[in-house]
Amino acid sequence: MADPIDSAALDTLFNTARTQNKWTDRTVSDETLRQLYDLVKMGPTSANCQPARFVFIRTQEGKEKLRPALSAGNLDKTMTAPVTAIIAWDEKFYDKLPVLFPHADAKSWFTGSAAFAEATAFRNSSLQAGYFILAARALGLDTGAMSGFDANKVNDAFFAGTGWKANLLVNLGYGDPAGVQGRLPRLSFDEAADLA
Amino acid sequence: MADPIDSAALDTLFNTARTQNKWTDRTVSDETLRQLYDLVKMGPTSANCQPARFVFIRTQEGKEKLRPALSAGNLDKTMTAPVTAIIAWDEKFYDKLPVLFPHADAKSWFTGSAAFAEATAFRNSSLQAGYFILAARALGLDTGAMSGFDANKVNDAFFAGTGWKANLLVNLGYGDPAGVQGRLPRLSFDEAADLA
Repeated sequence: MADPIDSAALDTLFNTARTQNKWTDRTVSDETLRQLYDLVKMGPTSANCQPARFVFIRTQEGKEKLRPALSAGNLDKTMTAPVTAIIAWDEKFYDKLPVLFPHADAKSWFTGSAAFAEATAFRNSSLQAGYFILAARALGLDTGAMSGFDANKVNDAFFAGTGWKANLLVNLGYGDPAGVQGRLPRLSFDEAADLA
Repeated sequence: MADPIDSAALDTLFNTARTQNKWTDRTVSDETLRQLYDLVKMGPTSANCQPARFVFIRTQEGKEKLRPALSAGNLDKTMTAPVTAIIAWDEKFYDKLPVLFPHADAKSWFTGSAAFAEATAFRNSSLQAGYFILAARALGLDTGAMSGFDANKVNDAFFAGTGWKANLLVNLGYGDPAGVQGRLPRLSFDEAADLA
């Protein structure tokens, strides 16, 4: 156990944080992106498999490569964001398990079943995307996550020949409050949870 | 943007937090579980769809219902944990979209494609599982997440007739450091990330 974090930090992570649609001119340094990854990598994954892969697009050239894959509603905010991260998974994540999980032959659990490997990669890279969004907020960044894009186009443009598969996109920067929309409703405990 | 959170809070969430395998006698109140949900629900999801559902098992009877679904390596730590949460998704999550995303006919995006609905539910409930693990740590709880269990048995035992589907399990409580294993390696930035 550890001491609970304080209410200001809970606000930064959960309670007052908001998805951003407009961005200030403040840039995001590569050093900040490395700090972000160094937090995300600490989050737990199944058999320590760490299937998520991250492409941080922060050049105009990179953004233009991404543009044709974006849905209309996500275009402006993504093209203007200081950084857009592609969160992907490596479909051959299990090749690293002899190092990442050395005390068992974990690789063989996945090489025998493509469906199990894909479900594990999808589940755990999405879990890591959750860590990513909260780690970004922890560093004072604002985020805007999106699944409204053409994954095949992203895969063709960025990942040809690599076996990486796009899962979702996350814009990163410092938000302009003018672009924030009204908070949408949340399910109550009784709608989403049970005690047993 | 918000102020970054301090290094003690980063330790609680990421850097010194560890998956727990043994538990102290300290119990977890239902009030704490409600506080946990109230943080998790604030995390962003695609079209605010919030597909994750949570069953907090904290009775002996509930644990016995879960027991046959557990893999051997996860049995003892789960049966002794103060609480085990089943994180599931509701395959008909889209029925709530007229309330959760009222400004568009978002429900129709999913009723037309079972595969798109399932991928959205799986991705976003896993993302919410990431929020869940970090929100639990933020409240001072320790966690132990697992995907080593028989999901069909969990679905039959807990979710018959509901359309909820088990995604992963998370033990909650206050860990006994004696059960913590050595930290496993993490992928470096250069192995897992690219700048573009």
